[in-house]
Amino acid sequence: MSLRTTIDEADFKALVAEIESQEGYKKPIGFGIARVDRGQLNPEKILQATFPFINWNENFGSAAIFIGALQESGVEVDFSSSEFVYDVKKKFVKNTMNAFTPYLNHAMGEAHKNVQVIKTLEWIAENEEFKKRYRIVFLFEDDKPLSPEAVYLKLYALSSGKAALRSLNLTGAFSVLENVAWSMGQPIELEWLRAHEVEMKLLGEYPIIESVDKFPRFLSHIIPADNTRVLDSSKVRMGAQLAAGTTIMPGASYVNFNAGTTGAVMVEGRISSSVVVGRGSDVGGGASILGVLSGTNGNPVSIGENTLLGANSVTGIPLGNACIVDAGIAILEGTKVGVSASELSKIIEANPKVKLKKAGKEEMVFFKGLELAGLHGIHFRQNSLNGMIVATRSKREIKLNSELH
Amino acid sequence: MSLRTTIDEADFKALVAEIESQEGYKKPIGFGIARVDRGQLNPEKILQATFPFINWNENFGSAAIFIGALQESGVEVDFSSSEFVYDVKKKFVKNTMNAFTPYLNHAMGEAHKNVQVIKTLEWIAENEEFKKRYRIVFLFEDDKPLSPEAVYLKLYALSSGKAALRSLNLTGAFSVLENVAWSMGQPIELEWLRAHEVEMKLLGEYPIIESVDKFPRFLSHIIPADNTRVLDSSKVRMGAQLAAGTTIMPGASYVNFNAGTTGAVMVEGRISSSVVVGRGSDVGGGASILGVLSGTNGNPVSIGENTLLGANSVTGIPLGNACIVDAGIAILEGTKVGVSASELSKIIEANPKVKLKKAGKEEMVFFKGLELAGLHGIHFRQNSLNGMIVATRSKREIKLNSELH
Amino acid sequence: MSLRTTIDEADFKALVAEIESQEGYKKPIGFGIARVDRGQLNPEKILQATFPFINWNENFGSAAIFIGALQESGVEVDFSSSEFVYDVKKKFVKNTMNAFTPYLNHAMGEAHKNVQVIKTLEWIAENEEFKKRYRIVFLFEDDKPLSPEAVYLKLYALSSGKAALRSLNLTGAFSVLENVAWSMGQPIELEWLRAHEVEMKLLGEYPIIESVDKFPRFLSHIIPADNTRVLDSSKVRMGAQLAAGTTIMPGASYVNFNAGTTGAVMVEGRISSSVVVGRGSDVGGGASILGVLSGTNGNPVSIGENTLLGANSVTGIPLGNACIVDAGIAILEGTKVGVSASELSKIIEANPKVKLKKAGKEEMVFFKGLELAGLHGIHFRQNSLNGMIVATRSKREIKLNSELH
Repeated sequence: MSLRTTIDEADFKALVAEIESQEGYKKPIGFGIARVDRGQLNPEKILQATFPFINWNENFGSAAIFIGALQESGVEVDFSSSEFVYDVKKKFVKNTMNAFTPYLNHAMGEAHKNVQVIKTLEWIAENEEFKKRYRIVFLFEDDKPLSPEAVYLKLYALSSGKAALRSLNLTGAFSVLENVAWSMGQPIELEWLRAHEVEMKLLGEYPIIESVDKFPRFLSHIIPADNTRVLDSSKVRMGAQLAAGTTIMPGASYVNFNAGTTGAVMVEGRISSSVVVGRGSDVGGGASILGVLSGTNGNPVSIGENTLLGANSVTGIPLGNACIVDAGIAILEGTKVGVSASELSKIIEANPKVKLKKAGKEEMVFFKGLELAGLHGIHFRQNSLNGMIVATRSKREIKLNSELH
Repeated sequence: MSLRTTIDEADFKALVAEIESQEGYKKPIGFGIARVDRGQLNPEKILQATFPFINWNENFGSAAIFIGALQESGVEVDFSSSEFVYDVKKKFVKNTMNAFTPYLNHAMGEAHKNVQVIKTLEWIAENEEFKKRYRIVFLFEDDKPLSPEAVYLKLYALSSGKAALRSLNLTGAFSVLENVAWSMGQPIELEWLRAHEVEMKLLGEYPIIESVDKFPRFLSHIIPADNTRVLDSSKVRMGAQLAAGTTIMPGASYVNFNAGTTGAVMVEGRISSSVVVGRGSDVGGGASILGVLSGTNGNPVSIGENTLLGANSVTGIPLGNACIVDAGIAILEGTKVGVSASELSKIIEANPKVKLKKAGKEEMVFFKGLELAGLHGIHFRQNSLNGMIVATRSKREIKLNSELH
Repeated sequence: MSLRTTIDEADFKALVAEIESQEGYKKPIGFGIARVDRGQLNPEKILQATFPFINWNENFGSAAIFIGALQESGVEVDFSSSEFVYDVKKKFVKNTMNAFTPYLNHAMGEAHKNVQVIKTLEWIAENEEFKKRYRIVFLFEDDKPLSPEAVYLKLYALSSGKAALRSLNLTGAFSVLENVAWSMGQPIELEWLRAHEVEMKLLGEYPIIESVDKFPRFLSHIIPADNTRVLDSSKVRMGAQLAAGTTIMPGASYVNFNAGTTGAVMVEGRISSSVVVGRGSDVGGGASILGVLSGTNGNPVSIGENTLLGANSVTGIPLGNACIVDAGIAILEGTKVGVSASELSKIIEANPKVKLKKAGKEEMVFFKGLELAGLHGIHFRQNSLNGMIVATRSKREIKLNSELH
């Protein structure tokens, strides 16, 4: 098989079909070309992968061309593995340029991003630095990621919104990534810092270290929507997802990887790993939503729409729409919550499909937090006269103030 | 009218009087010259205005000279509008230099800041970059700001302490400002980042993004007093005001625009937009003071002097001096608070001018949080035996530890 | 006495013995050579001291050589003072090089760090910048620090783990350090910023200010262990100590100086000055551990091993191992805590050496928080039916999830 210069779109499609027709060929669920940062002491270690563009269940034609170009230069692409990663070399770039010929002049703006990547690489390839700097990765299955490149591709899929939160297998991602010092967005091996500490400190050349972590920051890789705000880049980890219109305030907020928002949300508290918050909700100052790693027995928490978590509240159960958790209280799976008979009727009315035990003759019925999980229109409060945690039917729909903050 | 070289202070004053005597002339409440950052794709958009010095109800002579210099170059200054913004041009600089002649040699240190600005501009004006870089803005009325320059001038007035918190009209400020990525203090249009993402990422030239917001950070524009500390620049938004001696710790604190302190305050919690905290008070770790946008029904909260907000407490009502809100509790407008008859007498004694309902024969009187708003010497606690939120007369004046933290 | 070139290790030791034998000689408890940043306006003020390596109760041979080299150049080292600080000069470097001759070729990696420092300085000494840039400091007693160099040496001793937390005298450290603006790790006098504000702002050369504080950040000076993570450098102050495996999340966490961890700890909350947290413990999101400056009446708080502080909890008393403080509650010295008779027996069983008042016939016994200080296996909760704060025997050992977060 050889990769030829195509003459028009039909010819390009013919070439794609040719490549895809090979025995065992698999369309990748995701792929992309990344610039990689390698270990200063251990250059075989990939510390970071920066994707100018990622493909997720899309652009299978480009995938075929990339695979064909690799094969043409003698690389055996293993379709039976869940992922495949390889160096981008000059010849690969040249071959893909040929195959992309019909698109070269139209690759700009939002059009033909993969072609834009290749055009830029062709230009860079003249540079000596090119070698070892670029890697191409294909995911053939959503299995646990085996390489840093695959982890980054998945983090990009989540953070770009191309894959849904909690939809990807990230098992073992922590062990695949190196713990490094981040300086101006660049990863540095801690061991390298140690090796050069005496010299750099005495010369006044010790680097600025913003963090030491396995993950980079969201804003180092992702350009948010025009109406999204992140007031402090340290507050959102790469792999988080922020829907358009979301605001992350800098006080006590944090959005971990594989967590985030699915609509415009005001965030002044913590959205732990695995937590998803819906449109119009408000995570108050210092509010904590527990993640699967901290107090929810592995049950991921979803928060519905127009729900308000008061300042310094703690939520360990999923909540539906239009709920309120009052400031300063904690609703965990095991928290006993009192509901009066009359409020219980209203709550049942607002949640017609849910089966809840009904009140008998007693004035109050008691539920565990988990029994109220996911219900709509609940207002959790602590009665300040007797300390009882109670739930009532919330009286209002919580709306996000669209202009301010 | 022409702007001439003045020969001494008396002559300068004569020129000022001449300019001010014109029909319809208005003294501006605020004015200043800013270096502006323009949109990379849309240069007509002003993304940031940096003022080396602002004038607020002061230096009306300089204002007259600036207005005269504009008029002399043919610019019609519209005194009937609430604000007027114009480009600073070479000729304007030359004219003002002439008028400022008697002060040129004394403009240094804290003296004659406007003259210092003009002297520096004269020097810069030789540079090609000068064009389109500098803007002069006058506020004739405190109406809602119409231009980014006017918004910035008001934020400077607040953050420099020249205007009192909550004294200025900031209506619509959010819609006037662009949401941009901030990189090393420079604003970048998100659309420009998108247009250059492929190239910059592949070349390893993608900028460091510290935040995406409409507002810059306080420390990017304001030099605090010698004994003021801000341990993390992301924690204070431009437009906040920090009185000398205030310390902003980096844990869970935040001071929003149009909010801050009027004396030395230890801040480890959140001072939301519109909140003002008095001298000697202590906003404990994670404490939240609610703003007009979050839970106070639009009533701005003031906190008095020597008041302590315990760690992770939430305050939604104004408090007087020497109050204590215990760690972990929330006092909101609607919170029912029990007060014993004997404590009520002491509270009334400490607040002689306030009318509070008196205890009858019952042991406890109950108030809504809002009924206790603004009182001095109240200690809010939750009785840990029965969960009741109670208020007592606080036994001590809270003093700020002056040396440590 | 003269400092000679030694010919082998035995000769080196002889020279050391010779120096140490002088009348009044004292071995320093700590010493090191620092590159210093001086005031831009007041160059006699030391704003920061950066140590490539510090010695703490170790390397007394190098100390003797350094002292001998100073004396040889005519400097009188005052052993009667608690500390001694002096400029590093070319001649000093030359003399120590001679004395270190047997080690010059082996000084690399982790070996002979003091010799590495001197070798690097010899190379730098050719540079004009060398003068006034380097200082040597000796601590002869752990008295209150008198110079910025001594404060920094102690902060390094704590942050490097060479000295135990709370073991050093830091009295008055705040008054010895200057409050400065930090820009890319460099300290800048606020007065200098003011003096150059007009010019720098108009030229677009105003520096990026990350913080205004007396202390620098931990990560500006310390390289953590390979498995330690600090997700935001603003969250850990220089002088904190982070044991290997500790993770500092960026949400609402903070570790102040002279505070930290003695084993792998997950930190999402505040570890105030003087607080020490043990291995395997988990400081939940927004949890506050009070320090001696805030609410503990000067009693420093230690937290044991495998103890969990729930999200937004507040702890003002020391805790033993395997305790739990539930999310959202506050346990302070004066908090009344109910313990049922049966739970009290279990708690006593788990704490055999502690004397606790025993239950009589009543169902509940009540303790003040301080009476339960330091006990193991206590679970603090708030009964959500009646608001009572209760303590029970915790049912589980809290383990840190080693892979995730």
